[in-house]
Amino acid sequence: MESERFGTVVIVGVGLIGGSIGAALRTRQLADRVIGVGRDQGRLQEAVQLGAIDSGSTDLSTAVVDAEVAVVCTPVSRIAQDVRSIARSARDPVLITDAGSTKQQIISTLEADERSRRLFVGAHPLAGSERRGVAHARHNLFENSVCVLTPTDQTSDQQLIEADRFWSSLGCRTIRLNPEDHDRALGRTSHLPHVLASALALTVPIDELQLAAGSYRDGTRVAASDPALWADIFLENKDSVLGAISEFEAQLDQLREAIELGNRGRLIELGAQARDLRLRRDEVLGSTHAVNDP
Amino acid sequence: MESERFGTVVIVGVGLIGGSIGAALRTRQLADRVIGVGRDQGRLQEAVQLGAIDSGSTDLSTAVVDAEVAVVCTPVSRIAQDVRSIARSARDPVLITDAGSTKQQIISTLEADERSRRLFVGAHPLAGSERRGVAHARHNLFENSVCVLTPTDQTSDQQLIEADRFWSSLGCRTIRLNPEDHDRALGRTSHLPHVLASALALTVPIDELQLAAGSYRDGTRVAASDPALWADIFLENKDSVLGAISEFEAQLDQLREAIELGNRGRLIELGAQARDLRLRRDEVLGSTHAVNDP
Repeated sequence: MESERFGTVVIVGVGLIGGSIGAALRTRQLADRVIGVGRDQGRLQEAVQLGAIDSGSTDLSTAVVDAEVAVVCTPVSRIAQDVRSIARSARDPVLITDAGSTKQQIISTLEADERSRRLFVGAHPLAGSERRGVAHARHNLFENSVCVLTPTDQTSDQQLIEADRFWSSLGCRTIRLNPEDHDRALGRTSHLPHVLASALALTVPIDELQLAAGSYRDGTRVAASDPALWADIFLENKDSVLGAISEFEAQLDQLREAIELGNRGRLIELGAQARDLRLRRDEVLGSTHAVNDP
Repeated sequence: MESERFGTVVIVGVGLIGGSIGAALRTRQLADRVIGVGRDQGRLQEAVQLGAIDSGSTDLSTAVVDAEVAVVCTPVSRIAQDVRSIARSARDPVLITDAGSTKQQIISTLEADERSRRLFVGAHPLAGSERRGVAHARHNLFENSVCVLTPTDQTSDQQLIEADRFWSSLGCRTIRLNPEDHDRALGRTSHLPHVLASALALTVPIDELQLAAGSYRDGTRVAASDPALWADIFLENKDSVLGAISEFEAQLDQLREAIELGNRGRLIELGAQARDLRLRRDEVLGSTHAVNDP
C-alpha cells in the first residue's frame, strides 16, 4: 500500500457524508476507483453525475470484492450489519471503517464477530449539516474538521494506522478516544444540542416565527435535520443523551433561579462563564460558519 | 418634513446597533447630520473614524437641541432615563425612538412622563449579533430585517408615522405589536434562545470543546454576547422569560420521555414537528447566516 493512494474504495450509503467522502477522494485523486453502494439506483446515478463516485452498485457483496477500503455511511442502526456483510464478502485484509455518530453499541456488536473485530476501525468525522443527500455533498467537507477514531484493545494496530491514513487523507485531523468516552462526550457536544434545537423549535408557535431572528435561527438550525436519523442516534446513545439532558437542566436551573431572584450579579457571573467557554471553543476549532456539523 | 430625509439625527449609545443606524443613515444619505452621544470620547472618535457618525458628544442635553430624530440605543436598563432626558432638552416635536430588546417596563415608565409619552415611540429592530461595539457596526445590518414598533393607545399617530418612516428608511420591514405581546413573544423567540445558549455552553466541559462541532457552535453562538446587557434584558422581561423557560422544559420533557421509553415513533413525530416549524421560519424570514441577531 502506498502512502498517498488507495486502490478501490467502496462507500456504503452515498448521502451527504458518503458523497462528500467520495468527492474528496476523487478531487484529491486518492483512489483508483470509488464505488458507491446504495439501495436506490436513481440516487446512485445522481451521485455519479455529481462526481461523488465513479460508479454505483446495489449489490454490497459484489461491490466490495476488490475493495482496499470500505466506509460505511449508513444510519447508525444499520452500520453493524453492513460492516458484517462487508467483512464476509471483501478480500482480507480490507480496511472497514464507518462514519457513525455513535460508537459503543456498534463496536460491541462487531467485536462479537471475529472478522469484523479484526478488520473494522470505528470512526466519526465531526462534519455534516442538517441537510441530507448527495446533492449537498462537498469535496472539502472534512477540511479542518476533527475525525474521532475509536479503537479498543481488540483493534489491530495495522488497521488503526490505515484508518488514520484514510481519514487524514480527506483533510481531517484525527484524534483517538475509546467508544465509551466518545459516546459520553458526543452526548454533550452534539446529541444534546440536537435535542435542544428540537425542543426550542417546538416551543415557538408558528405565528411568532416572523419574530424569530438570529438567536432562534442558529439555536434551531439542526432541528431541520432528518428526524429518523437522529431518533436512531438518540436511542443508540440513550444513557449519555439522558445524562447530558440532566446536566443541561441543572445549568438551566441555575440561570432560572438567578432570574427568579432578580440576582443580576449571579446572572452576569454565569453569563461570563458561558461566554468564556464559547469563545474558547472557537480558539480550539475555529469560528467558521461552514457546513461542518454535527 | 420631506419623505426621504431627516435633519439632525442623534444616536444615544454608539455601539453595534447605534453605529449601524448611523452608518445606514450616512450611506443612504438620509440625514443632514448624524450626532453620536456617548460617555467615552475615545469611542466616539472611533465611531467618527469608522464613518458611523458625523460627530460625537458626551453631553446629551446639548447634542439633542436641534434633533429631528433621537434614537436611544443604550442598554435596556438605561433607556427610559435617556428618553426622559431627551424629551426635556430637545425641540418639540422631536421623534424619540429606541432599539431596546424589551418594551413593557420602559414604556410604562415613560408613559408616566407627559413629554415622553407624547414624543416617544418604542421600537425593536430584530438585528444585531453577539459582538459588541461600533467596530462591528454595518450599514446594511437592518436590510431585510424586521423592526417591531410598539405603540400603545397613548402613542401619537403622527409620531408613529414618523417612527415607521425612520425605521423603514434604514431597510427594515416594520410590524406593530403592543408592548405586552412584544415582550411575551420575544421572551420565546429571542430571550429564551439566549438563556439556552448559555446553559448549553455551561454544560460542555472545557476538555470536550475539541469535539464541539457545528451543532454546538450554532447552538451556543449567542452565549458569547455581553453578559451584563443580557442580564438586564432577562430581568426587564422576567415573567415572559420564566414562562418561556417553563414552556421549553415541557417540550424537552416530551423528547426526554420518548428517549427514555425507547419510543422511536414518538421521537420521529416530535422531530418532524420541530423540523417543519424550523423550515417554516426560513420561509418567513429567509435563511441567511448574516449578522442579524438577536
